[in-house]
Amino acid sequence: MTTKYVYFFGKGESEGNAKMKAILGGKGANLADMAEAGVPVPPGFTITTEVCEYYSKNSGKYPENLTETVAEYVKRVEKTTGFEFGNPANPLLFSVRSGAAVSMPGMMDTVLNLGINDEVAKGIAEKTGNPRFAWDSYRRFIQMFGDVAMDVPHHAFEKALDSVKAKKVNELGKSIHDIKDTDLNANDLQDVVEAYKAVYRKYKGTDFPTDPMVQLWFAVAAVFRSWDNDRAVAYRELNDIKGLIGTAVNVQAMVFGNMGETSATGVGFTRNPSNGEKEFYGEFLVNAQGEDVVAGIRTPLPITDLDKVMPVAFKQLKDITDSLELRYRDIQDFEFTIQEGTLYMLQTRNGKRTVPAAVKIAVDMVEEGLISKEEAVLRINANDLTQLLLPIFESKAREHATILASGINASPGASVGMVVFNAEDAEKEAADGKDVILVRIETSPEDIRGMAVAKGILTARGGATSHAAVVARGMGKCCVAGAGNLMIDYDKNLMVVAGQTIKYGDIISLDGTSGHVLLGTVPTIKPELSGNFEKLMVWADEIRGEFKVRTNADTPHDAAVAISFGAEGIGLCRTEHMFFEEDRIDYVREMILANDVAGRRKPLAELKKMQKKDFLGILEAMKGLPVTIRLLDPPLHEFLPHTEEQIVELAYKINRNPVRIKERVEQLHEFNPMLGHRGVRLGITYPEIYEMQIEAILEAAAELVAKGVDARPEIMIPLVGDVSEFTPFEKMTRSIAESVMKKYGVKFHYLVGTMIEVPRAAMTADDIATHAEFFSFGTNDLTQMGAGFSRDDAGSFLKEYVLQGIYDKDPFQVLDQKGIGRLIQSAVQYGKSTRPNIKLGICGEHGGEPSSIEFCYKTGLNYVSCSPYRVPTARLAAAQAVIKNKK
Amino acid sequence: MTTKYVYFFGKGESEGNAKMKAILGGKGANLADMAEAGVPVPPGFTITTEVCEYYSKNSGKYPENLTETVAEYVKRVEKTTGFEFGNPANPLLFSVRSGAAVSMPGMMDTVLNLGINDEVAKGIAEKTGNPRFAWDSYRRFIQMFGDVAMDVPHHAFEKALDSVKAKKVNELGKSIHDIKDTDLNANDLQDVVEAYKAVYRKYKGTDFPTDPMVQLWFAVAAVFRSWDNDRAVAYRELNDIKGLIGTAVNVQAMVFGNMGETSATGVGFTRNPSNGEKEFYGEFLVNAQGEDVVAGIRTPLPITDLDKVMPVAFKQLKDITDSLELRYRDIQDFEFTIQEGTLYMLQTRNGKRTVPAAVKIAVDMVEEGLISKEEAVLRINANDLTQLLLPIFESKAREHATILASGINASPGASVGMVVFNAEDAEKEAADGKDVILVRIETSPEDIRGMAVAKGILTARGGATSHAAVVARGMGKCCVAGAGNLMIDYDKNLMVVAGQTIKYGDIISLDGTSGHVLLGTVPTIKPELSGNFEKLMVWADEIRGEFKVRTNADTPHDAAVAISFGAEGIGLCRTEHMFFEEDRIDYVREMILANDVAGRRKPLAELKKMQKKDFLGILEAMKGLPVTIRLLDPPLHEFLPHTEEQIVELAYKINRNPVRIKERVEQLHEFNPMLGHRGVRLGITYPEIYEMQIEAILEAAAELVAKGVDARPEIMIPLVGDVSEFTPFEKMTRSIAESVMKKYGVKFHYLVGTMIEVPRAAMTADDIATHAEFFSFGTNDLTQMGAGFSRDDAGSFLKEYVLQGIYDKDPFQVLDQKGIGRLIQSAVQYGKSTRPNIKLGICGEHGGEPSSIEFCYKTGLNYVSCSPYRVPTARLAAAQAVIKNKK
Repeated sequence: MTTKYVYFFGKGESEGNAKMKAILGGKGANLADMAEAGVPVPPGFTITTEVCEYYSKNSGKYPENLTETVAEYVKRVEKTTGFEFGNPANPLLFSVRSGAAVSMPGMMDTVLNLGINDEVAKGIAEKTGNPRFAWDSYRRFIQMFGDVAMDVPHHAFEKALDSVKAKKVNELGKSIHDIKDTDLNANDLQDVVEAYKAVYRKYKGTDFPTDPMVQLWFAVAAVFRSWDNDRAVAYRELNDIKGLIGTAVNVQAMVFGNMGETSATGVGFTRNPSNGEKEFYGEFLVNAQGEDVVAGIRTPLPITDLDKVMPVAFKQLKDITDSLELRYRDIQDFEFTIQEGTLYMLQTRNGKRTVPAAVKIAVDMVEEGLISKEEAVLRINANDLTQLLLPIFESKAREHATILASGINASPGASVGMVVFNAEDAEKEAADGKDVILVRIETSPEDIRGMAVAKGILTARGGATSHAAVVARGMGKCCVAGAGNLMIDYDKNLMVVAGQTIKYGDIISLDGTSGHVLLGTVPTIKPELSGNFEKLMVWADEIRGEFKVRTNADTPHDAAVAISFGAEGIGLCRTEHMFFEEDRIDYVREMILANDVAGRRKPLAELKKMQKKDFLGILEAMKGLPVTIRLLDPPLHEFLPHTEEQIVELAYKINRNPVRIKERVEQLHEFNPMLGHRGVRLGITYPEIYEMQIEAILEAAAELVAKGVDARPEIMIPLVGDVSEFTPFEKMTRSIAESVMKKYGVKFHYLVGTMIEVPRAAMTADDIATHAEFFSFGTNDLTQMGAGFSRDDAGSFLKEYVLQGIYDKDPFQVLDQKGIGRLIQSAVQYGKSTRPNIKLGICGEHGGEPSSIEFCYKTGLNYVSCSPYRVPTARLAAAQAVIKNKK
Repeated sequence: MTTKYVYFFGKGESEGNAKMKAILGGKGANLADMAEAGVPVPPGFTITTEVCEYYSKNSGKYPENLTETVAEYVKRVEKTTGFEFGNPANPLLFSVRSGAAVSMPGMMDTVLNLGINDEVAKGIAEKTGNPRFAWDSYRRFIQMFGDVAMDVPHHAFEKALDSVKAKKVNELGKSIHDIKDTDLNANDLQDVVEAYKAVYRKYKGTDFPTDPMVQLWFAVAAVFRSWDNDRAVAYRELNDIKGLIGTAVNVQAMVFGNMGETSATGVGFTRNPSNGEKEFYGEFLVNAQGEDVVAGIRTPLPITDLDKVMPVAFKQLKDITDSLELRYRDIQDFEFTIQEGTLYMLQTRNGKRTVPAAVKIAVDMVEEGLISKEEAVLRINANDLTQLLLPIFESKAREHATILASGINASPGASVGMVVFNAEDAEKEAADGKDVILVRIETSPEDIRGMAVAKGILTARGGATSHAAVVARGMGKCCVAGAGNLMIDYDKNLMVVAGQTIKYGDIISLDGTSGHVLLGTVPTIKPELSGNFEKLMVWADEIRGEFKVRTNADTPHDAAVAISFGAEGIGLCRTEHMFFEEDRIDYVREMILANDVAGRRKPLAELKKMQKKDFLGILEAMKGLPVTIRLLDPPLHEFLPHTEEQIVELAYKINRNPVRIKERVEQLHEFNPMLGHRGVRLGITYPEIYEMQIEAILEAAAELVAKGVDARPEIMIPLVGDVSEFTPFEKMTRSIAESVMKKYGVKFHYLVGTMIEVPRAAMTADDIATHAEFFSFGTNDLTQMGAGFSRDDAGSFLKEYVLQGIYDKDPFQVLDQKGIGRLIQSAVQYGKSTRPNIKLGICGEHGGEPSSIEFCYKTGLNYVSCSPYRVPTARLAAAQAVIKNKK
């Protein structure tokens, strides 16, 4: 059987369907599906992504017989429409568009009006009685084809257009810059066509191709080539799109929104993609082609105004898009054209939306009975939830801020940063750690990398569906678009607005929610979470049930924040941060510098008082939720000063010989501190340190319980590699617990367990579990040791490793399930073999990363733990994991 | 059922047997077995090791009813011997000795003549008509009992003895120092008894216990307590004796070698334990007690002389010991006493022997039909074989060396070192890296730690079975004993010998084979291996069959040495050592300092010529045996200079800006170089380095094959953690191999595989094996990463870890089978799942360690690889592994 490379769609006769995204692309599959469902879609055909792959792999060759097949399908479209490709008397024109399996808006090239030549143009003029339309379409085609398919520089066409306009200066009595395209009549446009042809000849050395079929093949090749252009590669990289074989090409009969005042074109959403409100949202332009709307060159009208201009078409559009939303059970992002009163749907797809909108839409759709709670939970990208927790402007400061300009609130949020005027500068300054606001007249796909690093985006032109707006929403980034009173001067690297000059590097604040541009730094605060968010979270929590989410918190404040975000315990409370605080570090140093146990016990006694206070605070804040406290982990040299000057200062402060201090610093130096004298190894050599900490924890718990406050400490021994490193501290804990309980006359629940972060611990987890009541996977160190990467040093090669695909993702950000995952699975299996009900969790930074959370669930962990601000993400991701693995 | 705590032995009625060493101890089990077999053993009973354990755990209490049981057994011995414990008219005396499951010679305490009091002494005098014997026995008993059981200082008794001797000065006309014990008559000895009792009273505050049963219980307790004394603990530690519960106590009827000229006592071996010759070997003293021989206080006579003095007893002794050797199928180390012409065997056990003796005895016994080849192979401690390869004195230099003294050739070998006169100094100097010769008048168990660190041991007193000799042989350490003309002055830290004064720190050489003490440093050379060694190795090789032994060698010379020791290939040829050689290091540095690929290619071309020469040499030396060559492994900064001065020097040499060099050095600095940019990570970032090496290897092979020399290179990629790090170099190797073979017009066999040294590699070995043709376990790094220990830093805690028993052994010396072993097992399992016939080896330092070798065999590895001098050890250990796992 030979592969089918071309699929027809149109008038209820589609060969493809909605499920064939992989080979038809998203757009092609959707067109097929819409046509099948009776939606008025201009007919056409899709050349599959497999052809793109073949084309790439065979240096630009096509599969056998493709030429013949495409010719047949052109005939089929001719038959369906009644028009004929290249026939001046009754011409069929095509649009040629890319469309990959995953939407990549604006990333690849499109050619419209394909099929025109001099004769066809004349035929159109004759047939429509509208010569201006005919020549306008022709000159647009030459420009687009020349630019997109043949690499003729855009500005060369602009210059040719200006030369025609120049001739009209006297006639129109306008300066050349004030002459608009619409000021040109049919004859002028015919001149433009000739001028464009000359440009083409100049750059390509041949005449503009007049054979429509030749035009078509050039355009198809251009689309296939565009798959690997810089913009497209950058987009895929930024959006982490992998595993696609290429783009499909959609060749579709042209319809025209620019055939006069009964024609129009527009784009829209079935709901507001910015805030999620259930309202018809979008824009249109009368007498225009589609690209005019998206490019933001003319400012379009709100789609609801269409009702006034073309009420019949509006109603039809509303009905069709409503039904499409029902069909696809998600907000639709659609394009349409009205040609002389007749509505055509050019595209529909699930709409990109901001995170608040996504939450509202998901919750609304559940309440509308459109989707289930599970689907709603799956609809939200868990990672995005952190955006909802991002700061908003402090309202008083916001009130008093100077409003420089007002634009369209294209993507919500509050951002503050230095102004830059191009993408390169944005990248450069961001790399230096600066917060930047990218300010452009309008953005284009070339700006994508600069947009990705900017805190916010501000444009002078374009509306709610302009490139800047769409991309910013996709990135969850604050954007104000079309702030018309900005006078941007790229050459001078400044803008003038409201009488003020804002230079490169000046600070502004963007309010993406209101659309205001504010002068200087406006302070920000924590946002309140919406009721929809709460609803979604409640559903997520119901779904995930016993799969818990804890937080990593070292202070009562962090603990309180995490509780407000729904944390169900502390999975990692690091005690060493407490050691660094100003009032204690000298005691810590005194302890390290002591020569013997007695010398250490003195400062330890002081530290104990402070640590106990810390633990009282944290345990109290957690109100009876479990609190896993890790005993001292880092190597002691981290606490000592290292420069001569610091050493002398310390010596003076604690009245010691600086030479001795220096000796001790040198004695503690390690070649590979990561693999050195730290964690439980400190406990083994200096048991009095762990003893102090265990006492502080258990006494704090006892004191609270005596006051009637529930407290559930879980003591965690770090860096255990063998059960016999653990047992002395298990014993110590039990014995201290017994005496503390007796002393305070209370009973309380506590656990003693270990981190699993040394590969050897994973491999001997059966032994360890005979004594440890819980395991908490320290995936940061487990990754370092398991993969043999030092996080501090891996920069020299790890980035290249990810680029080369040796690792899919940075294994310090996304758990390496294949390698480190196997260590975890082994540990779980071994651990359960000797203690079937062992409590299992993760406290590495992977605990807040959705794919890692799903792995944890599948592997049988009881909880994940992450930083406070990741807790909502983790709650949602946990629920998603449960749903996905139920199926 | 109640536990049986006491076992009778004697006259063919033993309750225990030879297999009950764990509870009867080695001595007790042997006494039971000998008695059972009809050997004339004085009857007695053994109190089990379980009582010792009970005693330790219950703070010195005994199990219920033990007192009654012991009383019954005393009665039983009385019945068997016809004597009565504490009955002056017919007294039974006991010896009380320790005896653990593993022999610990001299490590624990013994009390003889127990059961004497004033009345009994008088009774003995009367009964034997030998009052001198009676009082001598009595005073010996008081001294031993006081010293050993009651902690009365030894010197206090010595002083008391001197006070009696002082009274004899006039009578005997001798100076007090010339008066010997034998100069004292019965009356004198009775005075000594009274003086000793006074000493006892003074130190203990009570009278010497006259109740024999009380004496017995004190002595038993002393033996149990001695299990945990310093000497015993040190001995177990040094000899790696673990898992024993305690010592047994053997209470045995006394027989007397000191009842006059028809009595004697002695110790001996059924073969020569020093060289393995089949000859009756040992010493005896007439009219002496056993301790006199072992302690080396009187110089004894060769055992063969016994034939002249007591021919009947001699023949009986010879017959019995011959039959014991047959019974136990090994060389016997025995003790005997002849009491008034009647022979008693006090003990027999398998004799400790030197390594050459062990080899000779094992081979002889096979040829005598006594044991099988497998048993012979198992008889040799594989680790010890390196001793046979240790240097001997260069014969010319030896001939001309000044002989300072001559002693007994107690343990063979050649050692050179500085003289020290006590164990503490030996430890101190050895810790500083010095070679020391420990010189003592005689050694005692307190010297054990000093002996362990000394290169050789020299004593002025004592024979071939003295403490020094026995311990030195056990340690495989050169020893000259009883070099009588040494005048050692501990106070002045010097000795005078042959008119010369040898001071602390002076260098001497010891010839343990001839028994000579030589002045200064005598140069040493490699020994020739004996025919017996060859025979044993041939048997070992037959037994291990396909389980191969390779070597780690980086030079043709090392390769040749290893082949001479029987290596069957190279398991690890490190290429970086070649990089450090003087004529290349500058090229290496130029390469590292280059800014781009082109800049690196120039010095790489030079390096390639040199590397190719190296590989030609090694491949040729290995004559068609497989040679695994590891590509560059260490981080590049290891090749660069680090001090300011070295940098400037290099800059001048290679004509570069020193500032740039310094920058590069700083740029390459790593926090954890162990986990940094090294191994295949270098290959990924600088593929031209690996390309150069692969070309050099394959061209060298091709050149040899073209000359008719077989060459089998195996290219090994280090530090792989994921298959996709490996595949580029597999591809590169195949492509280079193809073009090289074409260029040279030859075909040859090569493999490309990887080290498994990153835990992640072990866990994803299934993937890696889809491309790698072999795995070689790099257990050094696998241990570092798997256990999270940096070898360079672990010193600060690892020693303590081993002491505390967290690790049984230093995991860098003995493979940690429990943890790292599981990683290896997983890797083997995963690897075989995708490539069932994958070639598996080990090239970490564990590859030469017997227990690790057995693990490798059990885990299914095809070969081990170790340093050239460990090859014989590995061959033997491999055979032992095969035998043990056949059972």
